[in-house]
Amino acid sequence: MTSYQHQVIAVTHSPYKEKFAVPRQPGLVASAKAELEMLPPYDDINAFNGLEAFSHLWLVFEFHKNAPSSDVANRWSPTVRPPRLGGNRRVGIFATRSPNRPNNIGLSLVEYHGVIQRDGKIFLSLSNIDLVDGTPIVDIKPYIPYADSIPDAKAGFAQTSPEKLLAVDFNQDAVSQLQSLPSHYSGLQLFIKEVLQQDPRPAYKKLKTDNKIYAMHLSDFNIKWQCTTSTITVLSVDYV
Amino acid sequence: MTSYQHQVIAVTHSPYKEKFAVPRQPGLVASAKAELEMLPPYDDINAFNGLEAFSHLWLVFEFHKNAPSSDVANRWSPTVRPPRLGGNRRVGIFATRSPNRPNNIGLSLVEYHGVIQRDGKIFLSLSNIDLVDGTPIVDIKPYIPYADSIPDAKAGFAQTSPEKLLAVDFNQDAVSQLQSLPSHYSGLQLFIKEVLQQDPRPAYKKLKTDNKIYAMHLSDFNIKWQCTTSTITVLSVDYV
Repeated sequence: MTSYQHQVIAVTHSPYKEKFAVPRQPGLVASAKAELEMLPPYDDINAFNGLEAFSHLWLVFEFHKNAPSSDVANRWSPTVRPPRLGGNRRVGIFATRSPNRPNNIGLSLVEYHGVIQRDGKIFLSLSNIDLVDGTPIVDIKPYIPYADSIPDAKAGFAQTSPEKLLAVDFNQDAVSQLQSLPSHYSGLQLFIKEVLQQDPRPAYKKLKTDNKIYAMHLSDFNIKWQCTTSTITVLSVDYV
Repeated sequence: MTSYQHQVIAVTHSPYKEKFAVPRQPGLVASAKAELEMLPPYDDINAFNGLEAFSHLWLVFEFHKNAPSSDVANRWSPTVRPPRLGGNRRVGIFATRSPNRPNNIGLSLVEYHGVIQRDGKIFLSLSNIDLVDGTPIVDIKPYIPYADSIPDAKAGFAQTSPEKLLAVDFNQDAVSQLQSLPSHYSGLQLFIKEVLQQDPRPAYKKLKTDNKIYAMHLSDFNIKWQCTTSTITVLSVDYV
């Protein structure tokens, strides 16, 4: 079988330190900020000349937490259970953007905020991202609305944005912890709220109360939370 | 340097038999029809279950006419001259969708018309394509407008669709040839017209009259044409 080799050109520095809590599409957590660190020889400032005229970028990335694509013959499954269908209906893999696909190739549309030069390196400043920390990038392309934007395209069960099902509260302990943080963490509370509104629990728990205490590693913090009576309550925000 | 291996899952059967005449973005030549032939083991009909609800697909493909990505260190150029700028202004490679990029990865948004089962094989029926015949496909993803459509994204010099600069005429010989074709070629004349409206000549010839006779291989035909006084005239349509 023919295959092609693609080199990693950049690495993602993201507040999502694990797959749990990553939103299921880009564009759902506006305050999710990240930087791409360009790797040599692609860290040439001239390669970004003109990119300042664009507001959005396509990232082509590797789902690097999967088994390698070269093992795909062993793990190939033509159907998956998408979370949008509650996790209990199977559809064809090519009708979804599931990470478990023939090749581990992901596509993510992100907001672009410019190039940063720091410590002799080149970084791209992004927001509205859905990539886990360390994600390898194999291509960066500008978003071109006349070619890429088809607002009336049909998309079946993925026609509309997922509803923000849950209210998010912070208990007194969590509020105190957030208030004691240095000022460069000022966006953290909003970020936690936007992540939890999406309900990162497994799909079959949607809309269900659940006594379990969940933990997630976001930015430099371990965040504990619980879902009771359709509200998620943040219990603690501990520096890792 | 880290790299990833991606397997070819499908091959494109397209009327564009060579790079010349391929439009510079998808969506510019609506009547360009193609089929993807799924390769085993990805030719399982179940893998497309649910895809009938989607009108558009993303294809992630290999620019297979380029030198291999693994040779990129030898041919890496941080800037290119996009045709939209007349081919004489350099911009950063990441501000363009030029095929000459670090990895030979292309992204194309196409219209989807369903699965065809024929001769024990699985084909996807597409239109509005911009892929040359034989293009290897490494991923197929559904288009999801709530995540992918950003009509007001900023895109600099690529903000608007390229104008269809040229009128297209067919001379008497070409018309006779088209009229003598079997009925399954009935869309050929419109297709030729849509391709030539884009002016496939090199960017520096845009809007210029040119006595040269050009030939292009479209579908099963060698098509000759010439550009005079802002009109392209099709001279002949010969079966190859």
